[in-house]
Order: sequence, then structure tokens, then C-alpha cells
Amino acid sequence: MRILILGAAAGGGFPQWNCACSTCAAFWRGQEGVTARTQSSIAVTADDENWVVFNASPDLREQIIAHPQMHPRPERGLRDSPIASVVLTNGDLDHVAGLLSLREKHPLGLYMTGGIADVLDANPVFTALDPAFVTRNRIALDAAFEPVPGVSVRLFAVPGKVPLYMEGETVETQLVGEQTVGAEITGGGKRAMYIPGCAAVLDDLKARIAGADLLMFDGTLWTDDEMQREGVGQKTGARMGHMSVSGAHGTMATFAQTDIARRVLVHLNNTNPLLLPHSAQRAEAEAGGWEVAFDGMELSL
Amino acid sequence: MRILILGAAAGGGFPQWNCACSTCAAFWRGQEGVTARTQSSIAVTADDENWVVFNASPDLREQIIAHPQMHPRPERGLRDSPIASVVLTNGDLDHVAGLLSLREKHPLGLYMTGGIADVLDANPVFTALDPAFVTRNRIALDAAFEPVPGVSVRLFAVPGKVPLYMEGETVETQLVGEQTVGAEITGGGKRAMYIPGCAAVLDDLKARIAGADLLMFDGTLWTDDEMQREGVGQKTGARMGHMSVSGAHGTMATFAQTDIARRVLVHLNNTNPLLLPHSAQRAEAEAGGWEVAFDGMELSL
Repeated sequence: MRILILGAAAGGGFPQWNCACSTCAAFWRGQEGVTARTQSSIAVTADDENWVVFNASPDLREQIIAHPQMHPRPERGLRDSPIASVVLTNGDLDHVAGLLSLREKHPLGLYMTGGIADVLDANPVFTALDPAFVTRNRIALDAAFEPVPGVSVRLFAVPGKVPLYMEGETVETQLVGEQTVGAEITGGGKRAMYIPGCAAVLDDLKARIAGADLLMFDGTLWTDDEMQREGVGQKTGARMGHMSVSGAHGTMATFAQTDIARRVLVHLNNTNPLLLPHSAQRAEAEAGGWEVAFDGMELSL
Repeated sequence: MRILILGAAAGGGFPQWNCACSTCAAFWRGQEGVTARTQSSIAVTADDENWVVFNASPDLREQIIAHPQMHPRPERGLRDSPIASVVLTNGDLDHVAGLLSLREKHPLGLYMTGGIADVLDANPVFTALDPAFVTRNRIALDAAFEPVPGVSVRLFAVPGKVPLYMEGETVETQLVGEQTVGAEITGGGKRAMYIPGCAAVLDDLKARIAGADLLMFDGTLWTDDEMQREGVGQKTGARMGHMSVSGAHGTMATFAQTDIARRVLVHLNNTNPLLLPHSAQRAEAEAGGWEVAFDGMELSL
């Protein structure tokens, strides 16, 4: 399998359009080594011909143009794309708005839980994906499906919440169901786990991940109160449905003793100091065996 | 007034993600002088501090990062943007999907006709624009409003149709009402007309445009049957609600005798040969007094 990180940032991307927090400011002033990251998406193939995209980021059109692997192949006709299917892991805008860039009567398989399909169904704007060309497949949790030849996927519930734009008066931030899922991706005898959003890791989830050849995990925030510290918001990671990378209950500590061959942090929020390549936090993460994803990163299994 | 073309292409942009028509193919193979164009949007300011964006393209985040005029100004605090308001001229995806990139609790004034507001209201996904921060102003046709200091705008009906994703069984392609509008933009004693989509020009519209200092007009297609000729679709310009640039009833012929100081074609479809800087069609348009918009083009009045 080949995995291409199309976008390594969380919702809003890095930099965020209206933000001058310390990490965004480093980008805006052109600090050396600080590179932009588009919003959260990966692409996977087993045959170098058919790719499945996990999560359709608002930046998908830009991501397609930026990566030759995603370009149409003129020898295959006037309309073509290596993107054969899309899998969604939640209904957040940074994961679904890019569906609106996959219009133009192009055949696609779309795979998601019923809970996420309901969110799309509630918005007529997504009928821009003509049902005559785009099949919306409702996938049961823990059922295997093959979105492209040679790649098998299983979606499983992880603690999370409904999309921000579907929140009601009260919000359950560690809901376990169809609203937030991870994806187990297997092909060529290898197994990758893709979990861009996760509010907590319980024992069953840890057991499921153990032994993976690759874990791509929620790297949204370094610390739970990072947005407050930066002065750009009141919300904690816990409120947003994301556990933090550092700390006694963070991602690094949680998986410290788990057997995982390669560990990559994805879905990085614009406030996360891991975005700065020379930060102390980046050094700490790397010393702990974690890599920080960037746009265009390729992972071969 | 200063006008910045944020995106000069029609829906899908140039190149279009899945297209290998002759113009897209020229881009994909890296032909010299063929430059990408993002989807349809302009920004206008009278004070170089507050900008109004006309149409929020799906590429808006990329457009903001690409143009320093649109960057946040760190001296104004941790959250800032020169974009103070957005005006919509129709509900097409290439004009509204970018609203989803203007989230993050940022104060904005949103201006549109009631007909377009109804389209947004029908899609819960747009509640991502928190009503506590984003005011949806329903603007009557022909009523003047001031979206940023020193810039006065008047929306007026032009022949067009409802957005593709709202089409029913039958489609009126020359509907005159609140679904498709042009914008008269005045400031500093100058008058610009912005009409990115227009199915036909009747005498009243021509009279309204006459005497303008600048006309930015629907340059979607060079010929009405261009998509058929390229083999990438059956739809004509007429069916899509766009008159063509060339031909006896095209834009160039229509305005040949009209008093307009500067003429710029915007909203170019990926199939339009005007995108190729050395094409015969480009030469013909320029000989006729028309410029072809590109991303980053600045127009000062």
C-alpha cells in the first residue's frame, strides 16, 4: 500500500485565514521552515492506479492540483481521475466540504456510516454530487468493504461528537457511535490505522490498534488548553472531541507501551507548536517515536 | 476603488480536477504560459483596509493565503481579517461553498437577495457561520447598501437560473429575479459593474451598464456549444445560464457599441480557449477591447 498525506492540518488549515496566533504568525511573516498545511485528508492505493481518499477536505481541489498522483491521465480519456472512492470518518466540515469539489458527473463510490450519511442527506447542497454518478454507500460499523482493488477497510466507532454545525443545546463529547469513526486499512499484508479525530482511547481501542504497521492519529492539539493559552478561543480539546498529544492522559503516554511500527500525527490544529519544526514540542514528539505529518508525505507499507 | 481578482475561473476552476480537455491538458502537461485560475471571486476596497468579497469561492482559503492583501494583520490582534463582508450574486457552488471557509467565529456581514438567502437557509451546513458573528442581510433588488466604508453596491436582476443543485424537473434558463444578479459597485466617483453570470443582455441591462468605468462580465464560454465540441459534456451555455463571448449574439457583439471604459472577462470555464494566452480567440478578444482576467489581477479606478 502507498499512503499519501493530502492535508495534514485540522479544520481551518494552517495557517487559518483569520488567525495571528504564534504559529500562524510564524507562517504569515515567512519564518524559515514553517510550511503551510491544508486540511485533513489522506489518499491510499494498492495498485498505483485507483486511489481511495479518506475525508474530502475543503482544500481538495488544491490538493489534487498539488500532487501529480491525483491528476487525470489524458490517455484514459477526456474525463478521468485516479480518485475512485471517498471514505468519510466524520461529518465535520474539514472532512466533507471537499465533496463539493468532486462534482461534474464523475463516477465515485462514497462510503460512510449511516450517521454521517444522514448529515449529508440533510443538506441539499450535496446533491451537487449527482446520484446517477456518485453512490452513497452506508457502511455498518466493523464491516469490511473494498473501496479500491486491494485495499480493505473497516470503520469502527471512536469517542467523539457530532459535527459543530449539527450541535444542539447540549453536546456529548465522548459519544461512541456512528458520528466519529476510525478506519482500519489493510492491503498487501499490512495494516494501517487512520484515526484523525478521537476524544479518548479506551482499552478496546488500544487493543485494536496494537500490532499495526502504521498509526495515523489525531494530533489536533499539543495541550488541552492550547487555544486558551494562545488567546484565540475558550474551547478545550475535550470540548472539541480531541484528546491532546502531550500530558499524562495524552496520545504519547497512552500508546507508549503499545506495539506500533510507525506513528504519525495528523489533523494538526493551527495553534499546535508541533507545526514549528524547531519547537521543543516537536523534539519531544520525535524523541517519543512520533512523526508529524506534512502535505505530500508518502508512507509505503 | 481597488479591485482584486481572487479567482478568474468558473465553477470547477482551471484546471478542473477530472478534466483532460484541450485547455486542461495544456495545463496538466505544463505548457508555457498556461496558468491555473481558481474559482470565481473578486475583492473590493475603497480604503485599503476593509475589503468586500463578491462571491465566496470554494478556493477562498487558498485565495486568501495567495494574496497578502487578504492576510490577517497581526498588529490588530490575534484574530483579524481585511475581509469585512461578502456579497453573493447567485447561489451556485462556485460562489457560496467558500462561505464554509469563513467560519471560526469571525464577524462578517453577508449580503444577498432573499432568493439566495433561502438557498443558504435550506442547508444546515451553512450554520457553520455562527449567526452570533455573521449577519445574513437580505437585500432588495436595486436598493443601495454599503458593505464596506466608501463602497456602495446595488444588486440588480439579470437573466439566469437557479443553482444546479436546486434544479427541478424543468429549468427556466432565463429567469429574471432574485436568483441571479449583477452588482453595481460605486466608490470614489467611479462605477464598476460585476456580472459573472448572465444568460442574455436585454436593452435595459445594456442601458444600465453604459457609461461604466469598468465592466467585469461573464466570460464562461467562448462558444455556446464549446463543451460539446470538446467532448466533455452535452450542456450548452444557454442551458447553463451563460451567454457566450463570441458570435452574433455574444458578449463582444452585444457591447461593441456601448460606452464602457474598461472590459474584463471573468468566470472562465476550463474549456474556454481564452485561457490559452496564445490562442486565436484570445487575440480576437483583445483586439475587440476585452481583457481576460487572471488570479491576482488588480484593477484601480
